[in-house]
Amino acid sequence: MEALLPASLKRLKEALERLPGIGPRSALRLVQALLKKPELLQALWESLGEAAQQVRSCMRCGFWAQEELCTLCQDPTRVEPVLCVVKEPADVLAIERSQAFRGHYHVLGGVLDPLAGVGEDQLRLSVLWQRLRTEGYQEIILALGTSPEAETTAYYIARHLADWPGRITRFASGIPVGSDLEYVDPLTLARSLRERLPLSL
Amino acid sequence: MEALLPASLKRLKEALERLPGIGPRSALRLVQALLKKPELLQALWESLGEAAQQVRSCMRCGFWAQEELCTLCQDPTRVEPVLCVVKEPADVLAIERSQAFRGHYHVLGGVLDPLAGVGEDQLRLSVLWQRLRTEGYQEIILALGTSPEAETTAYYIARHLADWPGRITRFASGIPVGSDLEYVDPLTLARSLRERLPLSL
Repeated sequence: MEALLPASLKRLKEALERLPGIGPRSALRLVQALLKKPELLQALWESLGEAAQQVRSCMRCGFWAQEELCTLCQDPTRVEPVLCVVKEPADVLAIERSQAFRGHYHVLGGVLDPLAGVGEDQLRLSVLWQRLRTEGYQEIILALGTSPEAETTAYYIARHLADWPGRITRFASGIPVGSDLEYVDPLTLARSLRERLPLSL
Repeated sequence: MEALLPASLKRLKEALERLPGIGPRSALRLVQALLKKPELLQALWESLGEAAQQVRSCMRCGFWAQEELCTLCQDPTRVEPVLCVVKEPADVLAIERSQAFRGHYHVLGGVLDPLAGVGEDQLRLSVLWQRLRTEGYQEIILALGTSPEAETTAYYIARHLADWPGRITRFASGIPVGSDLEYVDPLTLARSLRERLPLSL
């Protein structure tokens, strides 16, 4: 059926299909919605152009920024001497949503994954070593997730920081707040049991 | 958390959220994917620009076209003297996928829906009357769907065509091929029963 689409729509559909979570059917639905509302197409086109031109990585932490430093790195109220290392910019937003952290972030840009061609040079590791030497943190939290690649990366960083005087921690993993035991996967359950904590009264 | 996003990303996220089926979470995931793959952002930006500039409605049938007439209207092999009236361009693709129709289409651009402000002038009705006067069809199929608005629109068109000499038909509605009775909704089941056909051996 694709043969019936004008060439430019075929290209638009293909570009949309390359986005995560968008299959051929929903790409077609999006094409239709965009053509039906020219002002929506225009808004998306403009904001893509703006994003391409104006958004960069914060020089320091790697989060999205429009100037040299991002909003977070420019915020003088963030003084907790703790550096939280995450995989992607969206992880910063997720942690900020919890309102439980007032320190700084370091976006690694991925995790080590030799099979997928992600080595040390693809990640923001040398900036990390430098920040730890110069910015006076007392703790680094490795919040890279719980995939095997993420855990390997966390161990790699921890080993590299063997002589660093601060604390090296990771996020607790265990049962999500609000979950019932029966719905928790066995690996998570085993880990929560192994890392059980005294109940303080 | 939105306050942390650079202004241009906030706008990009908002534009994506206005697309059907994309909520705040998936919009953020798309923003992230687009920033991570600049070549993808570029491809989407370019194809949106092209679509905006090059795609128009086929003057005759209303399907997507890059020239005055769409691929279907330019196809000399489509000779069945039947005009199939549909709601949206994507309906044309859906019917073409079935490979069961070799006539022409007429995209109405919606159905009558006074509450949503869609009246006769918003639809491609006058072009339809003209095509029926001049293009020599022997049958018109009203394939607008089965929503109350669609059915009202079909009746409206049929009434307007009371003096037109050709046949006026609609798609059969009933049990989808491959479905079990127990999973078919009661309205569909009632309709299939009412419109039952002799079993030819």
